[in-house]
Parts: sequence; structure tokens; C-alpha cells
Amino acid sequence: MDETEARRRVASASVARLASVRPDGAPHVVAITFAMEGDSIWFAVDHKRKRTPALQRLANIEAEPRVSLLVDEYGDDWSALWWVRVDGVGRVRADPEGIARAALLLATKYEQYRDRPPQGPAVEVTSLRWTGWSA
Amino acid sequence: MDETEARRRVASASVARLASVRPDGAPHVVAITFAMEGDSIWFAVDHKRKRTPALQRLANIEAEPRVSLLVDEYGDDWSALWWVRVDGVGRVRADPEGIARAALLLATKYEQYRDRPPQGPAVEVTSLRWTGWSA
Repeated sequence: MDETEARRRVASASVARLASVRPDGAPHVVAITFAMEGDSIWFAVDHKRKRTPALQRLANIEAEPRVSLLVDEYGDDWSALWWVRVDGVGRVRADPEGIARAALLLATKYEQYRDRPPQGPAVEVTSLRWTGWSA
Repeated sequence: MDETEARRRVASASVARLASVRPDGAPHVVAITFAMEGDSIWFAVDHKRKRTPALQRLANIEAEPRVSLLVDEYGDDWSALWWVRVDGVGRVRADPEGIARAALLLATKYEQYRDRPPQGPAVEVTSLRWTGWSA
């Protein structure tokens, strides 16, 4: 799969799985909603899916900015499987511009955010490297 | 979500996302098929989804055995979202017993493996710690 196709599939996906590394060196994985803009991928702390407001993923990225994102489609027909992995460098954006940028991008992509955009810190992932495979 | 319910949801899921840590300390994430048996989760190198036969995930686990697995369900109805994360310790099982055990468990769970069970090295994940959330 070439990079153009990999980007297209990621841009049109609704969910990604984000791997980061905990300060103690263990891996950590969560499901995220996200939005692409140019050569950045954004996600943000929102109201759903959290056990605690102090998020492990933000602490991880503050300590180790490298992240790995997977977008894939699983189904019983294994001849239709595909995945795209995006490796990059995350930066926590707790500044008002970063929070507002992420909120706008996410509310544009997800109807569910229109009435309740994410208000927490955002993460901007840059230096994207694309790897993709399809059956 | 209690541990019994988390185990039930993982056992009945067809796909998980596996985060591990590369030897250089960066995170890595892939989609895997897997099977549970008692307090172990097994996965194995099979014929699908690979770019190269020398798998990054095995090299990672040899160097850093801690792994994090996510099983989740995403959909447009955010009131129905849930996820289970299983953190554990992986061990590459390239021994004949390990390969055969994984092949049997996976072929029992997945019809797609019956004619072509995984023949590559397996990974057994133990010391499982369960974390779950549902909306």
C-alpha cells in the first residue's frame, strides 16, 4: 500500500488505537478518536471513555513523545484485511490555541462532538511515518 | 466493569490490538488474532497480515516482555462504547509444544485457521492485569 492510499484510509477512519510508553517503560494502548490536518494527527481529552481525568496517555507522551497509531479493519473475510500504522512524535498541547484547534477539527469530523467538543488538553502528532498492508 | 465481565468480553472478541516496545524504546502496535486459555493469552505468527517474516513484535518481546492488549468496540453510538485493556508479560514460544498449543487454540477459535493453522513462533502472555470501561 502506498502512502497516498495509507493516508486516505486513515483520514476516513473513525477510530485508531494509540500505543505509547509509560514512564516505567511498559507499553500502553488506548482507542482514540482523532482528526488529520496536513501532516498532523490530532486527538484530545474528551468526555468519553475515561476512567480518571488524569490521563495516562498524556503523562506517557510528556515523558516519551514517540507514539504509534494503528488503523485497521478486521472481519471474518481475511482476504479483505488491511492495516495502516502511523509512527510519529506527539506533543501535548495544553495551550488555548492547541485545545481550540483540536476541538474544531474533531467537531468537524465527528457529529458527536458538535454539542460537546473536547475541552481537555490535545495531542498533536507530527513527523508521521506511514506503513500499510492489505491482503 | 469487573474482571469477570472483562474476561468474558476479551474471550469472545476476534481481534485485539497489541502494543509492545521496540528495542530503541519506541512503541509499536499491531492487530492480532488470539486465544485465551486459563490465565494465558496466546497469539502466533501466521500467514496473514505480515510485511516481512522477521516480525518486529517478536523482537520487541524478546527484549522487553511487557505487552498491553486492547479489545474494544467502536461505533457511532458513543453510549455503547467499551474497552478492556490487558497488561501482561509475553514470552516467545518457539518450542514445539508452544507452537502446537497456540495452533490448536487458534484453530479451535478461528475457522479460518482450520485448514492452515499458524506455524510460526507463538507468544504466551501471562501475569494478566485487567482494566475495563463501558459507557
